[in-house]
Amino acid sequence: MEEIKDISLKIDFLLESHDYYSIKELIKEMEPADLSVIFEEFPQRIATLYRLLPKDLAAETFVEMESELQEKLLVQLTDSEMKEVMAELYIDDTVDIIEEMPANVVKRMLSSSDPETRKIINDILKYPADSAGSLMTTEYVCLDEDITVEDALKRIRRTGVDKETIYTCYVTKPDRTLLGYITAKKLLLSDDDLVISNIMETSIIFVNTHEDKEIVAKEMSKYDLLALPVVDNENRLVGIITVDDAIDVIEEEATEDIEKMAAIIPSDKPYLSTSPFEIWRNRIPWLILLMLTSTFTSQIITSFESKLASCVVLTAFIPMIMGSGGNAGGQTSVTIIRGLAIEEINLKDIFKILFKELRVSVLCGTALALATFAKMMLIDNLLLQNKAVTINIAIVVSFTLIVTIVVAKLVGCLLPLIAKRLGLDPAVMASPFITTIVDALSLLIYLGIATALIPGLN
Amino acid sequence: MEEIKDISLKIDFLLESHDYYSIKELIKEMEPADLSVIFEEFPQRIATLYRLLPKDLAAETFVEMESELQEKLLVQLTDSEMKEVMAELYIDDTVDIIEEMPANVVKRMLSSSDPETRKIINDILKYPADSAGSLMTTEYVCLDEDITVEDALKRIRRTGVDKETIYTCYVTKPDRTLLGYITAKKLLLSDDDLVISNIMETSIIFVNTHEDKEIVAKEMSKYDLLALPVVDNENRLVGIITVDDAIDVIEEEATEDIEKMAAIIPSDKPYLSTSPFEIWRNRIPWLILLMLTSTFTSQIITSFESKLASCVVLTAFIPMIMGSGGNAGGQTSVTIIRGLAIEEINLKDIFKILFKELRVSVLCGTALALATFAKMMLIDNLLLQNKAVTINIAIVVSFTLIVTIVVAKLVGCLLPLIAKRLGLDPAVMASPFITTIVDALSLLIYLGIATALIPGLN
Repeated sequence: MEEIKDISLKIDFLLESHDYYSIKELIKEMEPADLSVIFEEFPQRIATLYRLLPKDLAAETFVEMESELQEKLLVQLTDSEMKEVMAELYIDDTVDIIEEMPANVVKRMLSSSDPETRKIINDILKYPADSAGSLMTTEYVCLDEDITVEDALKRIRRTGVDKETIYTCYVTKPDRTLLGYITAKKLLLSDDDLVISNIMETSIIFVNTHEDKEIVAKEMSKYDLLALPVVDNENRLVGIITVDDAIDVIEEEATEDIEKMAAIIPSDKPYLSTSPFEIWRNRIPWLILLMLTSTFTSQIITSFESKLASCVVLTAFIPMIMGSGGNAGGQTSVTIIRGLAIEEINLKDIFKILFKELRVSVLCGTALALATFAKMMLIDNLLLQNKAVTINIAIVVSFTLIVTIVVAKLVGCLLPLIAKRLGLDPAVMASPFITTIVDALSLLIYLGIATALIPGLN
Repeated sequence: MEEIKDISLKIDFLLESHDYYSIKELIKEMEPADLSVIFEEFPQRIATLYRLLPKDLAAETFVEMESELQEKLLVQLTDSEMKEVMAELYIDDTVDIIEEMPANVVKRMLSSSDPETRKIINDILKYPADSAGSLMTTEYVCLDEDITVEDALKRIRRTGVDKETIYTCYVTKPDRTLLGYITAKKLLLSDDDLVISNIMETSIIFVNTHEDKEIVAKEMSKYDLLALPVVDNENRLVGIITVDDAIDVIEEEATEDIEKMAAIIPSDKPYLSTSPFEIWRNRIPWLILLMLTSTFTSQIITSFESKLASCVVLTAFIPMIMGSGGNAGGQTSVTIIRGLAIEEINLKDIFKILFKELRVSVLCGTALALATFAKMMLIDNLLLQNKAVTINIAIVVSFTLIVTIVVAKLVGCLLPLIAKRLGLDPAVMASPFITTIVDALSLLIYLGIATALIPGLN
């Protein structure tokens, strides 16, 4: 990162002194991802900088840029420059960019691409966002089954330059029905005169254009694929998804799950370029919902009001009991939610999970109860001389903790599993939701146990 | 998944009727990842099933299996079978497996590999877990700079079969100093008589053997690499990391972050094979710590005890205020933590973030306050005829909510940023930690505002 800062400073200086030649020399061998970060610092001069890049690096850097900067640049490009950009971009990147641009820029982008590309782009744009179709590129290597290895390699050499990957080649019938695949490695290591149909892999993993992109990423990760073929409803090959896009999806999905677990409505817009109003809109629904649910907790307290008034010391431990219950339940729910997401846990394991959490919760509950009991008797009662904290109160609080932790952990593992069973997203059953439920339950447990064990409260 | 269940049932039936030939036919074209799931169902018959697989598929399936099943299988294999397995495995997979096995199995594995491999394995085992060195494989394609494209392709054809990838070839000096790289695509698309040093890429991303694997995964994702070279302290190439391993790291890191955010000490052991005692050990430290911190909350309530006793209705809204504060703070902290993790947010943006969260929190706080005010006056006071809920109380609670949400969101964004600045992991500053702090703060705010606005309490 330090290095990038240095280069930014250098470019700033060179721009000031109009030394464009030095800038050109400086940036011509850099990585597109780094260049996009540097260009972010010079939004006013983006067109100047962009024009100093060699053609292929320019296209790769363009793809890496944030969409706001892309838009700034696109509106400054001449028609012929726009044509050049469009010709260099891979189809899947073009579609990604088009989806983020305002209508007038989209129109110019489409009219700058050749008619064939324009048709393909329009076809891909029709697939639902988050589908395999919207993620794929149509630039893959396609081989006939009856050609030899030598012919296949020749074909790759002739057409490979425009393909996003040449490392997995797909074998299809003339009507594009998918028959199998062969890797470039296998082609290179096989004898020249072997026929493709005899050496290709016929057990092939593929997805439909309408498959969810989360499934796409999971399949690619599970089977260690560099590319995944996408077929239409007639099983005809229409595109491929490459591993770099799958990695992006894996990161996005993790972010989405984390947001859902924190009671936020997920958005794929970067935080810094989201307006406060949009952020508010993603956060307020859950806040309101959780606030209304916590009304139950208030009702419970209200109904025990007279008892609490007669033994106010009980009130002091409410936040600690609720907090511990919420934390314990949150731990379990998040473990189960993530386990379900990465398929480490299945619904059929429900009884194994319940039994395990029961044992864990008894261990956790007992440890917390002992710690609390010791703390209440030694610190509150002896050290701080708070005589309202009697041994009776300490027993009530400790016993409540054990029961609360057990209940919290069982709720914490059951709710995500039930959500999964009902076809809902388990991630919304994370800490905030569990906490609200556990709050009410722990209060009932606490006040129930207190009523039973403290004579004056009866 | 349905299909896999069917095949499991079929295999169960075929095992019963000793029809091994049919099993062999059934599984010989399946995917390793699927086979490993199926084999998990037959731990008692694992050696039988394994012996029915063709040699290369056997090795690939072995790699995909859970370590417990691997161990079960290894102890049943003969010495010559063990040798075969070891010969088929890639070095990085071998090291992964060895790290999970008990000492006696490790000894047998090492003695079954040839002396050269054994030395490499022992070298890799010396790298710290989580380092690039422990993740790499030594089976890559290495080219001299002065050979032609034709020679390079010949070399790949001769030696490529044992390499984990041939798609990125590394160009080194005779002492293995890294000079550059060339992709198989470039080789295939270039003229046969060109010299490697003239067409190779010299701006090359690499990492040191001691680099953290999280950085490795980030670099590969950022620069869209299929393989990343690993060099020693003298800049000599010692191995490569392939993209499939980077994907695993990305998923593991996301899981770790999620666990930390839920106040769990991360563990890379799958949930179902972790004992309740181990799970307890990962969860109890934070539970105890958070419980002790919540003592402050109890102290605050205790010190306001007499005031609360004189206006018990105030107690009823404590959980709702604390809950809303915790949720609001949790939303912000999780957003910031994830933003930092995927490098969407940088420390230098701190003032931008604070200003944004200030605006968001005023919006959220106002919305929640209005909802609460309406609910208290319309439902509690009018509908439920709870006359203790006066307009004064409703104003106190609503005003408290605004202040609490603002404070919670500012704490929620400041703490992870401070942690990052201090070189700590921001993920531990997530909801449970924030909640405990916000609990105490919101209570102080609530009781402070109540004391100021309700005449009887002064």
